Amino acid sequence: MAERSLEGLIDALRRLPGVGLKSAQRMAYHLLQHDREGAQRLSQALATAAVAVQHCERCHTFTESRICATCSDPARDARQLLVVETPADQAAMERSGSYRGLYFVLMGRLSPLDGIGVDDIGVHPLLARADDGVVSEVILATGFSAEGEATAHVLAQALRAQGGAALTVTRLARGVPVGSELEYVDLSTLAHALSDRR
Amino acid sequence: MAERSLEGLIDALRRLPGVGLKSAQRMAYHLLQHDREGAQRLSQALATAAVAVQHCERCHTFTESRICATCSDPARDARQLLVVETPADQAAMERSGSYRGLYFVLMGRLSPLDGIGVDDIGVHPLLARADDGVVSEVILATGFSAEGEATAHVLAQALRAQGGAALTVTRLARGVPVGSELEYVDLSTLAHALSDRR
Repeated sequence: MAERSLEGLIDALRRLPGVGLKSAQRMAYHLLQHDREGAQRLSQALATAAVAVQHCERCHTFTESRICATCSDPARDARQLLVVETPADQAAMERSGSYRGLYFVLMGRLSPLDGIGVDDIGVHPLLARADDGVVSEVILATGFSAEGEATAHVLAQALRAQGGAALTVTRLARGVPVGSELEYVDLSTLAHALSDRR
Repeated sequence: MAERSLEGLIDALRRLPGVGLKSAQRMAYHLLQHDREGAQRLSQALATAAVAVQHCERCHTFTESRICATCSDPARDARQLLVVETPADQAAMERSGSYRGLYFVLMGRLSPLDGIGVDDIGVHPLLARADDGVVSEVILATGFSAEGEATAHVLAQALRAQGGAALTVTRLARGVPVGSELEYVDLSTLAHALSDRR
């Protein structure tokens, strides 16, 4: 099949995480055979999001505004800052309904094996954010995997060195099963982990 | 997160086969965080393919021309027509390097439980195609699943009723896969391999 637009589509789909050649073929055939409107809609959604979605200036999460809705919410407690790896982790914490403070989304975690070091995640923006004179507690809620623990350790050291006695640095309680990712943890466990933070 | 373009992207990704909410979120976050160029490229590939890719008038496979490259190839044996379910099956057969005839791609298979009947796959175009006065053998190469077998059965009946003695209708051999140990082959395959011995 010397069909460049079909092969181009399959190649482009293969760049999605977790999608190999067989899955990409199946997706392309499905869209072209059964759901051309879905293909057009996905095309449009990708083009729109790639332009419209930016990072919140305060918490770094994805947003279409300069400041995201959560950071702009006056009802939230600006003295608490909860640090997560991803927007999915933030969404899981929100669904637990047990947190009313603000967030900081690292958009990653330390992973030396993948070449992701301190400068590749939002450590310096986090230090600046925590230094606003309002934040009195930073709650580290990175995952309890090896990379997440290392990230929490590095962040705790940097935050304590900068904040001194004025800043409390806590970590989610180890009610969260060791080795699991935050976004897959059940909600009541998340709530317990939050209230037992130390 | 009241972010419509991000949610729109996740919704559009969920329409892909085999993609649920978690996978769609992971794909969207990956594209926005690490591969915006990939997002733009996929958007473009989808838009291009949805317009450019049509069905070959002779074999029904995906093509950008009126007649696909395989059907236009004068070096192929026009007396043999091999019937497969999908372009992926056709590509697998091509990679085997053992077939030099032409193809017909059903773009599906009978699946009454999913509401896919005789008129939803290319039965009538296949009958017209096999009646061109050149084709002397139709090789049924639908899958060996229950649906694939039922499809082959229905097609064989229809082709034999139309073609009479002038048309030979054959089916890919059932048997033991090359490289496999007999003790791990399922029993009905063994029974077929025994009765079809040569």
